[in-house]
Amino acid sequence: MSSTWGNKIKLTVYGESHSRAIGGVIDNLPPGLDVDPDEITFELKRRATGSSALATARKESDIPEILSGVVDGKTTGTPLAFVIYNSDQHSQDYDNLKTTARPGHADYTGFVRYNGFNDYRGGGHFSGRLTAPIVFAGAIAKTALKKKGIYTVSRIKSIADIEDTEFDISSLSETEANELKKKIIPTIDESAAQKMESRVLKLKSELDSAGGIIECAIINMPEGCGNPIFDAFESRLSSLIFSVPAVKGLEFGKGFDITKMRGSEANDPFYTDGERVMTKTNNNGGILGGITSGMPIVFRCAVKPTASISREQDTVNFREMKNEKLVVKGRHDACIAVRAVSVIDAAAALCAFDFLCESNVFGG
Amino acid sequence: MSSTWGNKIKLTVYGESHSRAIGGVIDNLPPGLDVDPDEITFELKRRATGSSALATARKESDIPEILSGVVDGKTTGTPLAFVIYNSDQHSQDYDNLKTTARPGHADYTGFVRYNGFNDYRGGGHFSGRLTAPIVFAGAIAKTALKKKGIYTVSRIKSIADIEDTEFDISSLSETEANELKKKIIPTIDESAAQKMESRVLKLKSELDSAGGIIECAIINMPEGCGNPIFDAFESRLSSLIFSVPAVKGLEFGKGFDITKMRGSEANDPFYTDGERVMTKTNNNGGILGGITSGMPIVFRCAVKPTASISREQDTVNFREMKNEKLVVKGRHDACIAVRAVSVIDAAAALCAFDFLCESNVFGG
Amino acid sequence: MSSTWGNKIKLTVYGESHSRAIGGVIDNLPPGLDVDPDEITFELKRRATGSSALATARKESDIPEILSGVVDGKTTGTPLAFVIYNSDQHSQDYDNLKTTARPGHADYTGFVRYNGFNDYRGGGHFSGRLTAPIVFAGAIAKTALKKKGIYTVSRIKSIADIEDTEFDISSLSETEANELKKKIIPTIDESAAQKMESRVLKLKSELDSAGGIIECAIINMPEGCGNPIFDAFESRLSSLIFSVPAVKGLEFGKGFDITKMRGSEANDPFYTDGERVMTKTNNNGGILGGITSGMPIVFRCAVKPTASISREQDTVNFREMKNEKLVVKGRHDACIAVRAVSVIDAAAALCAFDFLCESNVFGG
Amino acid sequence: MSSTWGNKIKLTVYGESHSRAIGGVIDNLPPGLDVDPDEITFELKRRATGSSALATARKESDIPEILSGVVDGKTTGTPLAFVIYNSDQHSQDYDNLKTTARPGHADYTGFVRYNGFNDYRGGGHFSGRLTAPIVFAGAIAKTALKKKGIYTVSRIKSIADIEDTEFDISSLSETEANELKKKIIPTIDESAAQKMESRVLKLKSELDSAGGIIECAIINMPEGCGNPIFDAFESRLSSLIFSVPAVKGLEFGKGFDITKMRGSEANDPFYTDGERVMTKTNNNGGILGGITSGMPIVFRCAVKPTASISREQDTVNFREMKNEKLVVKGRHDACIAVRAVSVIDAAAALCAFDFLCESNVFGG
Repeated sequence: MSSTWGNKIKLTVYGESHSRAIGGVIDNLPPGLDVDPDEITFELKRRATGSSALATARKESDIPEILSGVVDGKTTGTPLAFVIYNSDQHSQDYDNLKTTARPGHADYTGFVRYNGFNDYRGGGHFSGRLTAPIVFAGAIAKTALKKKGIYTVSRIKSIADIEDTEFDISSLSETEANELKKKIIPTIDESAAQKMESRVLKLKSELDSAGGIIECAIINMPEGCGNPIFDAFESRLSSLIFSVPAVKGLEFGKGFDITKMRGSEANDPFYTDGERVMTKTNNNGGILGGITSGMPIVFRCAVKPTASISREQDTVNFREMKNEKLVVKGRHDACIAVRAVSVIDAAAALCAFDFLCESNVFGG
Repeated sequence: MSSTWGNKIKLTVYGESHSRAIGGVIDNLPPGLDVDPDEITFELKRRATGSSALATARKESDIPEILSGVVDGKTTGTPLAFVIYNSDQHSQDYDNLKTTARPGHADYTGFVRYNGFNDYRGGGHFSGRLTAPIVFAGAIAKTALKKKGIYTVSRIKSIADIEDTEFDISSLSETEANELKKKIIPTIDESAAQKMESRVLKLKSELDSAGGIIECAIINMPEGCGNPIFDAFESRLSSLIFSVPAVKGLEFGKGFDITKMRGSEANDPFYTDGERVMTKTNNNGGILGGITSGMPIVFRCAVKPTASISREQDTVNFREMKNEKLVVKGRHDACIAVRAVSVIDAAAALCAFDFLCESNVFGG
Repeated sequence: MSSTWGNKIKLTVYGESHSRAIGGVIDNLPPGLDVDPDEITFELKRRATGSSALATARKESDIPEILSGVVDGKTTGTPLAFVIYNSDQHSQDYDNLKTTARPGHADYTGFVRYNGFNDYRGGGHFSGRLTAPIVFAGAIAKTALKKKGIYTVSRIKSIADIEDTEFDISSLSETEANELKKKIIPTIDESAAQKMESRVLKLKSELDSAGGIIECAIINMPEGCGNPIFDAFESRLSSLIFSVPAVKGLEFGKGFDITKMRGSEANDPFYTDGERVMTKTNNNGGILGGITSGMPIVFRCAVKPTASISREQDTVNFREMKNEKLVVKGRHDACIAVRAVSVIDAAAALCAFDFLCESNVFGG
Repeated sequence: MSSTWGNKIKLTVYGESHSRAIGGVIDNLPPGLDVDPDEITFELKRRATGSSALATARKESDIPEILSGVVDGKTTGTPLAFVIYNSDQHSQDYDNLKTTARPGHADYTGFVRYNGFNDYRGGGHFSGRLTAPIVFAGAIAKTALKKKGIYTVSRIKSIADIEDTEFDISSLSETEANELKKKIIPTIDESAAQKMESRVLKLKSELDSAGGIIECAIINMPEGCGNPIFDAFESRLSSLIFSVPAVKGLEFGKGFDITKMRGSEANDPFYTDGERVMTKTNNNGGILGGITSGMPIVFRCAVKPTASISREQDTVNFREMKNEKLVVKGRHDACIAVRAVSVIDAAAALCAFDFLCESNVFGG
C-alpha cells in the first residue's frame, strides 16, 4: 500500500506540494497517550523550511490541525487525523515541469506511473513536504517512548566529503540527544558543522548541491522486538527509511564495513551482569535475526545531493519526446540531508513505537 | 506479517532447520505461467549446501515437491504450495544452544521473542535454510520475467578486502548473466574469485569466517513500476533483502558514495532517441521517486561474516544468566555471502515480478 | 485494520461525532477518473440529516472539502483526502454518556475497548456520521462505474412488518434506479412508502423506533470478479456492510430462503445466446464460488431499530457499576434504515469498484 | 488476499480437490500453546466425508501432518505448517467439467477468473475440501480458548422446512456443547434430527438435495474485542463465514427478525451485579458497535442445497458457447449443511481466537 505504513500503528499520508493541504491519519494508537503540542511543533519546525540560510526560502508555517482522535490532550484510541494546510505556493514556478523532467527527480517516472494525471506542481505527491506527516507521527511516538525511557538521537555524520568526528552516538544521554536536536547541523564536533555549512553555501553559490550521511540510534529499546524473515526490525524500518525521498542507502551497525571484518571480530560477544544480557561490542546495531537484542539500534542512511539545482541541465521533454535544456526554478535547499535528520529521527521513533505497540507495551 | 511477503504476489514461508520440512505457499500467481522444474532445480542447487569446498558439509538435497496450484506445468492461478523435506539433520550438535547464545546469532533474541518455546536446533526458523523458499519463488518469477526479456544478474563484488574489478554489471547480456550464475564465486575477474576462495579457505582453517558484498541488477525493467512514499520500489525490495539473514546494508545506484558527489554530477541527465527516455548515467540505480525509470535497477548489499565459527567465544547462558565460553559445533560455510548470491538474485526477481503483476503485465 | 477498507482501493476514515471534523483518504485510485461534485453532493445529501420529518433535527451541511489527489476535476492517482467539518453539535446533550450506557449502543463496549478514553459525545467514532466518508467514496466509485454501464439500485424492502411489493429490482434500468434514489423512502410501491412513513412517525410519537430491510443490486457487473475462499465477493462486501452501524444480517440472492429450496430449484440453470453465459434464475445473487457470474449482484441487509429512543430504559452506570435508568437525549431518527439506504448503496458501489480496479478495468 | 485470513493470526490455505495435497500455514501463533492431536483429529473427522449415510461415499482419511512450528506438542511461535495428502480421487468423474458448468457451482466463474487454467477436477480450489484447513486451525484455536473457559456450540437449526426446537444454545454448558458435537445431525430435539435425516435421504433418492441453517454461539467471550467501522467483530467473522462454500446468508443475534421489533424491544437493557455488566436479553448477539459486550456471540448462517445433484440439468458448454444437458457425476452429500457445522464452528473459534490474540490474551 503506497500511502499507509505500519503493522500495528498505521500511518496514512496524503497531499501534494501545491494541493489544498497535506496531512495524515494515524490508526490504532493506544488510547490514553499524551499528545504534546510542543513536541509536535518542535519537530515540525526542525523539518520546516526557512529555518536557516541552508534551507529553501519557501516559508511554510507547517502548523497542523488535529481533526479527530484526541480529547483533552489524550488519544482516544480511534483514528487521529491531522491536516497541514499549504500556503506560500508559487505554482507558476513549475509550469515547465508538465512536460520536462528535472534530472534526479520523479517528474518523468511520475508521469509514466500516473499516465500524465499526477500533480506536477512542486513535485506534487513526490515533494519532500510529504515527510511532514512522518515527522508529526514521529513526535507522537517520541512522547510515548519517552515515558518508557526510550529515545532517539541523530546526527549528520558527513556532508560531501566532510566527516563529523568518530563517535558512538548511542553513548549520548537523553539530555545530550535533545541538545543535538537544537542544532541546525547536528554534529558532535562543532567545527565539522561549520565546515559543512561553508561547503553547502559554497555549492549553493555555484548553483550546485551536496549530499550527506545521517546516523541515528534508538536507545533503551527493549530486547525481543521484531521478527525473523519478512518482518525483521531491519525490514520494517528499511521500508520506512527508503520512503524518505533522496535516501539511496541504509546500513545497520557496522554496515558495509562489517564485510571487511573477520567473524571473530564481527560477532558481538555476549555478557551478563546477572540481570541483563548485553554485548561487548555492537557491530550488529542492536538487531540479531531481525529481533532487537536490547543494545542500541544504530543505523546510517545516505541522502543524495538535492536534485533541484539552478544550473542548466540536459533533459527530455517527455510529452514531445525531444531533448531539451532545463533550468530548475523554485526555491530549494542546497543540502536536504540537513532537514532530513528530523525525518529519519521521526521514522526511527515511529518504527520503534510500532513494534512496541505490537508487543502491547502501551496497552490498548 | 512475519512470514508473508509481497503486495500482489504473496509468498508465505515456513519451516525450521530441524522440523519435518520447510516450504512455502505462493498466492495470486497469474494463471497460465510456465513452471519450469529445471529453473527451480538449478536455482535451488546454487543455494544448496555442499556445492563447494567453501560451503558447509551438510548435504541437503533440497528437492521440492509441488503440492498444489500447478496443472500440466502451468500455474492454475490458485495457491502454489511446495514442500522441501528436511534430512541429514544432526540435532544433537545443537543441544547447548538451548541455553547458550551463539554470538552474532538469533539464539538469544529468539529465546526472548518466543518466551523460550522456539525451536533452537540448527537455528530453527532463523536458519539460512529458510531462504530456499525465496529461491524457489524467485525461480518461478525468473521464468516469467524471461518471457518479457527481463533478467537479473548478480556478482560477488567483494569478500573481506578483496574486490572484484570495477565493472557495470548492467551491461551484461542475458547469456553473460547466465554464465556468471554457473560460477561458485561469480566475479567478473576470474583471478579475484581465486583470491577470494583462498582467503575464505584460509579463514576457515583459522576457525574464522569472511563477509562480502553482493551486487545485483535487474535488466530491462520497464519504467513506471513502484510508488511514491511508503511503497517505493526501494522500500518493497529492501524489506525483502533485509529478510535475508546476515544482510546488514543495502544501497541503490551509487549508494553511500552518492553523498560525496555534487548534485550536478549525481543527477542523471535524461536523453531520448525519440522513442524512449533514458539517462546518460545511472547514479540513481534505475529508480526515481520510488518508481522505475526504465534504466537497470542496480543495488548492492552487505553480508556479514558467518556468525558460526568454531573457535571459542565469550557468551552467556541466558537461562541461568551467567557468563560462559562456547565452541559452536555443527557444519557451517566460512563465507555465506557466496551462497547468498542466489538468494539476493531471487529476491530481486521476485520483487520485480511482484511489481509487474501489480501492473497486470502477466494478466490474471 | 479498523479504519481502512479495501484491497486495491483503500478507504481510510476518521472522525468523531463531536470532533473537529470527519473525513477520509482514498488511496490507489486510478489516475484520470472524473470526480463529479454533483454526484458527491447528491449522495451526501441523501445520507445527511434533516432531509425529512423522519430524520433527526440535527442539521449537518456535510459539505466536503477535497484536500489532495484531484487536479482539474480528475484524480491524480495519489491519495484523495477529504474533510467534512462538524457543526451544530450539542455536546452537552451527551454528558451522561460518560458514565451511563445507552442500551443497544456502543457506549459500554467502547468504554471497555478504549479503557475509558474514547470520545463518548454523540457516540464518538461509533456515530452514524462515520458513514458519510463511505458515501463520499461510493460517489467517486459510482461516477467511474457509470462509464462502464454499471450501476446500483437500492430500495427499502420493509420497515417493521410493512413490506414493499415483491419485485426484482435488478430489472430496473439505470434511469429507473436514479428515480428511486430521489425518494425519501425508496420503495417500488408508493403506497408501501406511505404506510412505512406513517408507522415510523407513529413510533416516534410513542418515543420508539423501527428497523427495516434494505435490498440492493449491482447491475451489469462483469463476470470473473472475486476469489475463492477468503476473498470471495461476498466476504469482501460483507466486511464492508457489517461495518455500517446497526446492520445485523446480510444475505445474497435468495439468502436464508434458499435453505428451504431443493437443489433442483435452487441451482440457477445456465444458458447462452452464443455470446454470453447467463442463468435463467438468479437464486445465487450473481455470485458462484465467490466470483461474479455476470448476473446482477443482489443482496439484502437487516437494519435494527434505532437504539436511541427517548423513553426511559434500564441500564448501568459502568464507571460506578450500579443499575440506573436512562432517558437518551439528543436528536435521533426514528428509523435509520431510511438513511442507511444511501450508505448500503455506496458500499455496494465501492466494493464493485474495488474488485474492478483490481482487475485493472480502469487502468492505472 | 484470497488465501490468507486473519488479523493477528494468519491462516493461509492451499490445495485443490485432486492436487497432491491440501493444507495450510498458520502464522503468528503465540508460542507455548498446546497442540492437541486428539482435538484436531476429532474435528477433522467431524468434517470428513464418509461419516454417515448422509455424506458422500468419497473416503478421505484427512490425516494431517504437521511440518513445522511445533516442538514437544507446543507451538514455537513460528509458522505452523500442515499438509493433508489427497487420496481416493476419481479424476475421470470430472472430465466433462472442463467444458461444461455444473449449475450452482464455480466451474464457469472459475474458468473466467483463471482464463481457463484452473484445476477443474472435483471443483479444484473451490472444493469443499478446502474447508479442512479451516477446521484444523479452528481445532488449534479451540484448545487455546478452552484454557480461558471459552467454547463454541453449534447446531443445525433447520434443514429444508424442518426446524429444530426453539432454544437458546448459548445456555448450554461446555459439556453439553461437546455432547452436541458428537451427533451427526446436531439438534437439540432428537426427533427433529430424525425427520431431517429422513428428508435428506428422500431427497437423495430423488436425485435432489437440501439446504439448512446452522446456528453457532461463542460462549464466555470477554467484552471489549472488536472494533468500530471496518474491523467490527461482525465484519471480520463475516469475511470468514462467507468464505465457506454454499453460505448465502449470515445474521447476528435476532438478525433479520430484529427489523420487525420496536427499538424498546430490540434494545438489550443493561444490568449489573456490581461486578460485571450484562444484558437482560441478547438481541444484538453479544456485539455492540462492532465490539463484544461480554454476552454470548450468537449467529446463524444459511447453507444452500448441495449444488451437485445427479439429475439432468440445463447448462452451457462455455468453451464452445452452446447450450447442453448435464448429469453431474461423482459422489456428493445430499445436504452439505450437516458437514458444514464443523466448519462454521471452527470459523467461530478461529475468529474469537484471532481477536483475543490481538488483545495479547495468550501472550506472545
